[in-house]
Amino acid sequence: MSKLNLARKLIESHLVEGETNAGQSIAIRIDQTLTQDATGTLVMQEFEAMKVGRVRTEVSAQYVDHNLLQADFKNPDDHLFLRSACRRFGVWFSRPGTGVSHAVHMERFGRPGRTLLGSDSHSCAAGSMGMLAIGAGGLEVALAMAGRPFYLKMPKIMGVRLSGRLPDWVSAKDVILEMLRRHDVDGGIGRIIEYHGPGLAHLGAMDRHVIANMGAELGATATVFPADEAVRRFLASQGREDQFEALAADENADYDEHDEIDLSTLEPLIALPSSPGKVVPVAEVAGREVYQCYIGSSANPGLRDLAVAAMIVDGRSVHDRVSFDINPASRQILENLSEMGLLNTLIHAGARLHQTGCNGCIGMGQAPASGRISLRTVPRNFPGRSGTEEDQVYLCSPETAAASALSGTITDPRTLDRPYPKVFEPERLCLSTLGVIEPEDQDAGSDLEMGPNIVPLPDAEALPDALRGPALLKLGDDVSTDEIMPAGSRVLPFRSNIPAISRFVFAAVDGSFPKRAEEARDRGAASFLIGGDNYGQGSSREHAALAPRYLGVRAVLAKGFARIHWQNLCNFGILPLQFADPQDYDTLQQGDELHLEGVREALESGETRLTLHNHTRDQDYALEHALSERQIAMILCGGLLNLMREELAA
Amino acid sequence: MSKLNLARKLIESHLVEGETNAGQSIAIRIDQTLTQDATGTLVMQEFEAMKVGRVRTEVSAQYVDHNLLQADFKNPDDHLFLRSACRRFGVWFSRPGTGVSHAVHMERFGRPGRTLLGSDSHSCAAGSMGMLAIGAGGLEVALAMAGRPFYLKMPKIMGVRLSGRLPDWVSAKDVILEMLRRHDVDGGIGRIIEYHGPGLAHLGAMDRHVIANMGAELGATATVFPADEAVRRFLASQGREDQFEALAADENADYDEHDEIDLSTLEPLIALPSSPGKVVPVAEVAGREVYQCYIGSSANPGLRDLAVAAMIVDGRSVHDRVSFDINPASRQILENLSEMGLLNTLIHAGARLHQTGCNGCIGMGQAPASGRISLRTVPRNFPGRSGTEEDQVYLCSPETAAASALSGTITDPRTLDRPYPKVFEPERLCLSTLGVIEPEDQDAGSDLEMGPNIVPLPDAEALPDALRGPALLKLGDDVSTDEIMPAGSRVLPFRSNIPAISRFVFAAVDGSFPKRAEEARDRGAASFLIGGDNYGQGSSREHAALAPRYLGVRAVLAKGFARIHWQNLCNFGILPLQFADPQDYDTLQQGDELHLEGVREALESGETRLTLHNHTRDQDYALEHALSERQIAMILCGGLLNLMREELAA
Repeated sequence: MSKLNLARKLIESHLVEGETNAGQSIAIRIDQTLTQDATGTLVMQEFEAMKVGRVRTEVSAQYVDHNLLQADFKNPDDHLFLRSACRRFGVWFSRPGTGVSHAVHMERFGRPGRTLLGSDSHSCAAGSMGMLAIGAGGLEVALAMAGRPFYLKMPKIMGVRLSGRLPDWVSAKDVILEMLRRHDVDGGIGRIIEYHGPGLAHLGAMDRHVIANMGAELGATATVFPADEAVRRFLASQGREDQFEALAADENADYDEHDEIDLSTLEPLIALPSSPGKVVPVAEVAGREVYQCYIGSSANPGLRDLAVAAMIVDGRSVHDRVSFDINPASRQILENLSEMGLLNTLIHAGARLHQTGCNGCIGMGQAPASGRISLRTVPRNFPGRSGTEEDQVYLCSPETAAASALSGTITDPRTLDRPYPKVFEPERLCLSTLGVIEPEDQDAGSDLEMGPNIVPLPDAEALPDALRGPALLKLGDDVSTDEIMPAGSRVLPFRSNIPAISRFVFAAVDGSFPKRAEEARDRGAASFLIGGDNYGQGSSREHAALAPRYLGVRAVLAKGFARIHWQNLCNFGILPLQFADPQDYDTLQQGDELHLEGVREALESGETRLTLHNHTRDQDYALEHALSERQIAMILCGGLLNLMREELAA
Repeated sequence: MSKLNLARKLIESHLVEGETNAGQSIAIRIDQTLTQDATGTLVMQEFEAMKVGRVRTEVSAQYVDHNLLQADFKNPDDHLFLRSACRRFGVWFSRPGTGVSHAVHMERFGRPGRTLLGSDSHSCAAGSMGMLAIGAGGLEVALAMAGRPFYLKMPKIMGVRLSGRLPDWVSAKDVILEMLRRHDVDGGIGRIIEYHGPGLAHLGAMDRHVIANMGAELGATATVFPADEAVRRFLASQGREDQFEALAADENADYDEHDEIDLSTLEPLIALPSSPGKVVPVAEVAGREVYQCYIGSSANPGLRDLAVAAMIVDGRSVHDRVSFDINPASRQILENLSEMGLLNTLIHAGARLHQTGCNGCIGMGQAPASGRISLRTVPRNFPGRSGTEEDQVYLCSPETAAASALSGTITDPRTLDRPYPKVFEPERLCLSTLGVIEPEDQDAGSDLEMGPNIVPLPDAEALPDALRGPALLKLGDDVSTDEIMPAGSRVLPFRSNIPAISRFVFAAVDGSFPKRAEEARDRGAASFLIGGDNYGQGSSREHAALAPRYLGVRAVLAKGFARIHWQNLCNFGILPLQFADPQDYDTLQQGDELHLEGVREALESGETRLTLHNHTRDQDYALEHALSERQIAMILCGGLLNLMREELAA
């Protein structure tokens, strides 16, 4: 008898289609969905386009956390639009100021044994509670809301055995940084990471949230923790103990891959600019002068994370050159921190207390000064994500950030001359539930409130049989969706307006891109992008596919793709192809005129290898795809929304 | 014996030049200066250009409160620049997150009997403490920092006698709204408003701050309150009782004008969109649906203002359509509110707690949704100032805003079914003084930290004896400084970068202007502008003179000038000349080559009439000036900064 790991149990209990052999296409039932405002307006437009009426999930929740900087009418109009959509579709609405989706979802809805699909790449954070939680493109979430299953390739399950106990001054963030040090930003691709072993005993639910959240940075499909005593305690603190159910892997369960961390051997770690995978011991870079220490975000959202920082700076004041930015992840955490008397400890030490939400983590304010070092507990430090070009963002634990705030230089917290503060969280938290509004049945017919910046989705025509056009841009390895479709306060307000947001595609890489793409599109060409390995890593934003598609991109040729973006490309009718011989990447240059003939026929006939002709260099390249039948169907008809409409009409 | 009012006493004790007859030019000694970050970067550059070394005031303080939204490197770079300038020049530096200048200045530096000049129009708020506090342009503040007196026309003194006591649910904001209802937004022009009488007994120092702050909305030069027991109590709460000095008008003092308010007769008032002068009783507009209730800002910065709002919403939750935005004016207020347990009352009721600073009051976030009503305790509701075009911003008291947040409609707080909460402020506040950094003598020689967007002020060479160049642009009547030098989020980030901001000069009038001007400048020409009547009306912004000067404009020929811009042209070395015969305006055309010969000699000799030769049309025009000797001196040497340097070197 096989000994099942928990990830496999969760998948098998939700399996709708396929066999659970790694690499094979499967479909699973989705119990819960999560959308945030940056992706949610599009999801709601997509859901409306499907004409399904009310959502068909156990719980669907819409959060407002990304676009809280209301520089003009656009963001507040979007908030009202989302609120009206929630009423119309039967979705819970988390009001602006309630908190970051991942933290609030865990507080209010996280439940062992459930599946969650979220249109945010860090939706995987809910894996901390014995859930199978996966980030996906918005359109897939819209489908899940409509009761459709979620399609994915059965991932390998990597079991990570935790043993020992974290030393003083080392915390959950250092565990995930250690994973990133070992496996880098692509080490989790095609995998679910399942933590097990005796080391779990000393990691609370919010600690596990830190680790599960940044599974996204490993490229993992999901991260799974058992639902054990720590999860029961967390649910009890939220007044939801009745929703607890113990879940764990079978004893000596099988895993496809193995890793092991002895927690007692870890030391404070830090990711250097500008990749979460460039991890070194803090001690190695100690002494560098710091401009900013930033604590909070979905990657360190715990009450404990802010509390430990407060206790570290208690009675002292932060260095006068440091901007000590405190970003509470939820209203509940802010309230309880204040209840514990620790909010004032932070403020008194010199903290800049920011509104509850994503803020600088997503480039909405708090950008660092030119060339200055910013230490952040956030999950990502991709180039320019902070809002400042050539930024110097380091990722670390709250302990490291707080210690460095005191000294004004990168500081290994073990070198502080005080005992490691022990945080005791209250058994029962002070709860405020009014920030998340329950949908009411009688609102089913209510209208959508569309402000002037909310523009209907552009139509997408079917794939032509021949793609002929320029290689518009050639990119390197690990290009993130932040580079493809930047976020930040200048761009995000246009997320419900595709023509407008498309003007920012590749803005930091090549400002001329949108113009060049439009010129090619308007003369009838089908444009190509050339990528290296792990193309489209990072955020799940579907605008990184939808906006290029609007600009006429019809195929991306790369050495490899990040999972979510690969699916997003399919969803919006862009053909993702891999070089059969990666060296062909080198010969292909930006501006080359490329021809891909008979592509419809090849895809329809099940051909997985296509020949690309480089007209400029008179060369042929072999390209491969690993598309499922369903993905082929959606690409052929111009995208998943077209496919859904066809299916619903049939 | 004349019975002196307090305003006159303050002026006479600081008089350096002139007679205190209303309308006559006087100069007064300035004890304290205040700069904020939006104006301060230029002030610091101007001060640097004077080469004075350290400030020569009793207290100069620089605040960072306007530009806290760090979307990219520019704002944080400016913060670092200001911090370095404060070290170099001996200025107190209030760090980002410490609070709004007016509130923090009152907490830390406000002192009865002192004069304050601030490069912010609400600097007048410090009049709440028996000070003479005046808002002014940046260069004038820079001069005051250098120990120079401030020149103004002696205002009329309007005495406003307060009697009675405010009823429940009516507070200080309603007093200044009553003044605006009576006198509108120009009723205070050329006046100092001095409050006196028995009604003062029940108005605390922070209540008076509300009234003094919005004296700016009446157009008043300053607002003066006596330094009495309320001020002593305030100073004691700040640990500065030793700086108290009782100051009041003589009994039965003379005033140039009189008004009187019986406080007991007031009711809750509200200013309608979009002028602070459109005041009506709240009851008259009650019931209108509200999107936002916004409490805080420099116009209601008191601990009492947030505390009363908290006590009103205590145990309830705000209406689900209302964005309940709380903007603490200072770190100290935030900390004490939390200490009193009232911060959590607000949060629990649904507040969005924002960072300490100006925020939405100056359009930095918190814009309302399209067409929705926003109730704010801020001082101004000019059209679009919130960030949203055609906004619907109403100005009201914290009581009215909090009551309306509960109901979701404009609500007269007297109609609430609870007793009026009595706020008892702690005798002694929890003080955190580290947010305002004292300058240290040993930093006198330290460097300025100039990020890439901070460019030194361009040198301005002396006026040549012959001005020869093109009439670059011909304009009509009533051209405003908004047309000359636009503001807005696209332009303002370049306020410390004259070469960059100069590219926006006349952007909406003639996009080719900057390029044409630079071409003329670079071939050594001295350019001319041709204006109609009332040239340079509107905002006092100095960039409207400085940026054209940078582009090579050396003279403006017009039918007439607006007063402040006329002075700004002189300050930056541009010669303002009027047509002796206004009909000459008609013959002169854009592009004409103009010659003004022997101009230095003519100005030096006291000649008030100059002859301009139109080389293109072979015509001569008579031009006149009404410049004072000092204005001539500054124009001859290239501007006021050069003149200052010469004077200081002598």
